[in-house]
Amino acid sequence: MRESKRGVVHLCLEMSPRTFVIIGLGLIGGSLGAALRKRFARARVLGVSRSRRKINLAKRLGFIQNGGTSFQKVVSQADIVFVCTPVDTIGDIVEQVDQAAKPGTIVTDVGSTKGTIVRWADRKRFRNIRFVGSHPLAGSHHGGLQYSTANLFDGAVVFLTPTKKTDRRARRAIASIWKRLGTRVYEMSPNAHDRVVAHVSHLPHGVASCLVNAVSSNSLRFSASGFLDTTRVAQADPALWTPIFLTNRVHLACDLKRFRAVVDRLIDALSRGARADIRRMLAAASLKRRQIG
Amino acid sequence: MRESKRGVVHLCLEMSPRTFVIIGLGLIGGSLGAALRKRFARARVLGVSRSRRKINLAKRLGFIQNGGTSFQKVVSQADIVFVCTPVDTIGDIVEQVDQAAKPGTIVTDVGSTKGTIVRWADRKRFRNIRFVGSHPLAGSHHGGLQYSTANLFDGAVVFLTPTKKTDRRARRAIASIWKRLGTRVYEMSPNAHDRVVAHVSHLPHGVASCLVNAVSSNSLRFSASGFLDTTRVAQADPALWTPIFLTNRVHLACDLKRFRAVVDRLIDALSRGARADIRRMLAAASLKRRQIG
Repeated sequence: MRESKRGVVHLCLEMSPRTFVIIGLGLIGGSLGAALRKRFARARVLGVSRSRRKINLAKRLGFIQNGGTSFQKVVSQADIVFVCTPVDTIGDIVEQVDQAAKPGTIVTDVGSTKGTIVRWADRKRFRNIRFVGSHPLAGSHHGGLQYSTANLFDGAVVFLTPTKKTDRRARRAIASIWKRLGTRVYEMSPNAHDRVVAHVSHLPHGVASCLVNAVSSNSLRFSASGFLDTTRVAQADPALWTPIFLTNRVHLACDLKRFRAVVDRLIDALSRGARADIRRMLAAASLKRRQIG
Repeated sequence: MRESKRGVVHLCLEMSPRTFVIIGLGLIGGSLGAALRKRFARARVLGVSRSRRKINLAKRLGFIQNGGTSFQKVVSQADIVFVCTPVDTIGDIVEQVDQAAKPGTIVTDVGSTKGTIVRWADRKRFRNIRFVGSHPLAGSHHGGLQYSTANLFDGAVVFLTPTKKTDRRARRAIASIWKRLGTRVYEMSPNAHDRVVAHVSHLPHGVASCLVNAVSSNSLRFSASGFLDTTRVAQADPALWTPIFLTNRVHLACDLKRFRAVVDRLIDALSRGARADIRRMLAAASLKRRQIG
């Protein structure tokens, strides 16, 4: 019965117009609304936020057609739901979505860590929804709806983290939506995802934050482009990043230790005045960094 | 006799046109030529490089009016000489300038470390020149003449590092030239300078290089703006940066150790899953970083 219901709903999804609901109207939620409206011209895009002001602003900026503060009213209209809230709130919100949604509704999130949420979803028996974890590697240290743009996802990497328990059609539907938004979609396990983003996102964020904290305010007035570039990500909202660090703390701590060992080698080379060693480290980094553009 | 000679030369310097000679035609040398030609319209700007190709390119791009590969011919015409070569070559070049220059010629450099070169210059008894150390905090990970621009120094910080032995008029002349190029000039001791630039320039450079070296090439294909910003400076030419690190290795090693202690605290907080501590570190960094723009 459930399967057939899902089949019917899926068929509906294939035929536009469909209804997207975005929960959480920050930089990602707003940009996603703008991108969906641009690439799915016939679809309806609705928003949910606790803040009436944000809903009104998102409507005025054309990111959503309509929205509300009530899950029940808005989510019940959804074919596809994007949960765009901080990682430590996603589980609670997905549960509420499950209560409010039509049977077969496809739900994904955009959280920066996937292990915790996907393990939780796999254990869960949802009544109505089919959940697929996703994570667009896009964003900015400037959070907030006002920085949203339909182009945020152009060419961005999006990770999908299905497991054996993930509904195959839901997985295909979410992948195809992200692709239509101009992103490059990669599928990997939640754990592999968390390891990769620890390397390329959470580690640099931690390092940049430590760098800012290690330099005296008195010297900072002399900071130029080098310091500013190296520490730019440290500006980001700690309310968003604390739960990201916490939910990826094992991988991140492991990466920071490996990084620390490299720092130790540089300190050692400097202490010895070892020109060849210093040069080798700088040359390796320069070459490797140039290769990624 | 020498004093009076110097006095006469100084008088001449006050009355344009004067002749600037730039030794070394990389990003800084080229940009300096362009800026001098723009802000000192009546002055002559000459270049010295081992590379005939660079001299021709600098002439074609309008960064210098003329130049040559021979110190003797070009430097003998100089009122003011800017040595714009890697820090480990400055001493040798200043000695050659002293051989070739007219009595009273004012010489400065643009090296990123000042302790080694200024201590050396203070011990030296020059025959003809008056040396003042300077360091414009400007540049780019893109080295090379082709990236030069007259605007490179707009609003940049320039450090002057005079000592008790520094000729006062030379110091004033160099300060006034940098100011006319649109920079903000700060005077401090060579040691204080090296400590400050370790904080705001050499430390981020070392950290960025270690970060690149700590991440596997396999993950780097997923790097996005956060990783790219944080590691941008690591691209810079290791041939320029190895001597900078070596001549500032005591301060830099000290800074890296302080930085490592901050990293250790983050690793510890992650290992304990200490939300409040992680949040406090991220919030402190975010606030401090936002304050510098």
